[in-house]
Amino acid sequence: MEMGTVIGNVWATRKEDDLRGLKFLIVEPEMPGRTPAGAPFVAVDRIGAGFGDQVLVTRGSAASNMSNDFKLPIDALIIGIIDSIDVEKKEVNDRG
Amino acid sequence: MEMGTVIGNVWATRKEDDLRGLKFLIVEPEMPGRTPAGAPFVAVDRIGAGFGDQVLVTRGSAASNMSNDFKLPIDALIIGIIDSIDVEKKEVNDRG
Amino acid sequence: MEMGTVIGNVWATRKEDDLRGLKFLIVEPEMPGRTPAGAPFVAVDRIGAGFGDQVLVTRGSAASNMSNDFKLPIDALIIGIIDSIDVEKKEVNDRG
Amino acid sequence: MEMGTVIGNVWATRKEDDLRGLKFLIVEPEMPGRTPAGAPFVAVDRIGAGFGDQVLVTRGSAASNMSNDFKLPIDALIIGIIDSIDVEKKEVNDRG
Amino acid sequence: MEMGTVIGNVWATRKEDDLRGLKFLIVEPEMPGRTPAGAPFVAVDRIGAGFGDQVLVTRGSAASNMSNDFKLPIDALIIGIIDSIDVEKKEVNDRG
Repeated sequence: MEMGTVIGNVWATRKEDDLRGLKFLIVEPEMPGRTPAGAPFVAVDRIGAGFGDQVLVTRGSAASNMSNDFKLPIDALIIGIIDSIDVEKKEVNDRG
Repeated sequence: MEMGTVIGNVWATRKEDDLRGLKFLIVEPEMPGRTPAGAPFVAVDRIGAGFGDQVLVTRGSAASNMSNDFKLPIDALIIGIIDSIDVEKKEVNDRG
Repeated sequence: MEMGTVIGNVWATRKEDDLRGLKFLIVEPEMPGRTPAGAPFVAVDRIGAGFGDQVLVTRGSAASNMSNDFKLPIDALIIGIIDSIDVEKKEVNDRG
Repeated sequence: MEMGTVIGNVWATRKEDDLRGLKFLIVEPEMPGRTPAGAPFVAVDRIGAGFGDQVLVTRGSAASNMSNDFKLPIDALIIGIIDSIDVEKKEVNDRG
Repeated sequence: MEMGTVIGNVWATRKEDDLRGLKFLIVEPEMPGRTPAGAPFVAVDRIGAGFGDQVLVTRGSAASNMSNDFKLPIDALIIGIIDSIDVEKKEVNDRG
């Protein structure tokens, strides 16, 4: 999953029929320290994320697993709103 | 999903049998402010997008969810024609 | 889908059993104006593409939708031989 | 699969219902020699990986094959904790 | 599919249960002329590839089609050992 921040909304009246009622948010991908890490993209949200929230996003066809019975043609889904992140200085374990 | 603008059409008479009758459009991916964001690609359209339209595109195998009964070998589908985009200055929420 | 040109062939006698009999072509991805757009890759072809043909290629697991009953472990399929491409100077539509 | 090192944890109370109880770790992708090789991302872990462990990660929708009956919307799964890596100086075999 | 050369092995005792017994090889992706083309990654092999072999690799969830009954969480599979590659000077065909 990618970390990112919700920076906007997209409206599209004319769309694939199966996608009516879904909320589309613009997410800017970020490094753990919240510096930008790539081009913003659009993700479906159904857990109530909003402007400025730091979120976890599943990208690719796994996003369509939001429903197992009927797969939607979506490629990004906000799966969590991040409470906190812990990053430790990398300390390489001995191998082997 | 990626945002982009329809910049062209592709015709291919000789193609996989299951793809007859589909419309193939060239989409240039864009940032929310509509500056280009990568190499143009080809997407299937069945919602009536045309030259100059700003669109939402699902990429990867989720595009083939346009039909759930019979999956087509396509990797990009225009899922919406964008009416408007709101992007706010990023205002980072406190993390909990 | 990506646009590209067929630039070669690959032969592999030892391979996954289910892939016997398939034709593997090397495709160089291209921009609409046919300038190269990335590293060449290998795609399955069953519509008769050959050296120098400009083709449309589906990448990722959607390529394995070439058969819906039994999915093959392939990640690129030539789905069309391009007859012509129309690209218009981008003329941004008013957003609504 | 990608090689990488676990560098942190992510907590998200509000999330997709099906993902409750899963552990989310931050992984920094690495080259075989353990130099960083891209932006850190978040992966699900259920084999007990921890800070500093060198891991093998499956990315993309194949990660959701962690359960075959019910597919979860996740796009990265830690599939192994690396004991050791052998890399030999590339010695190109004669071809055919 | 990508072309590449096998440059190493990875051992991981602790791993997802379904992956026991699989062989994990490190592959360096290459251009058709065998110059490196990206970061090395790990692929499953069951056709007997070894150090120095030039191989064809399927990446992404299509790799898990190595078994159609039970999908494994793997994202790269060696599908062929390359005997030979023919690349011709690109000679663009007339379109249309």
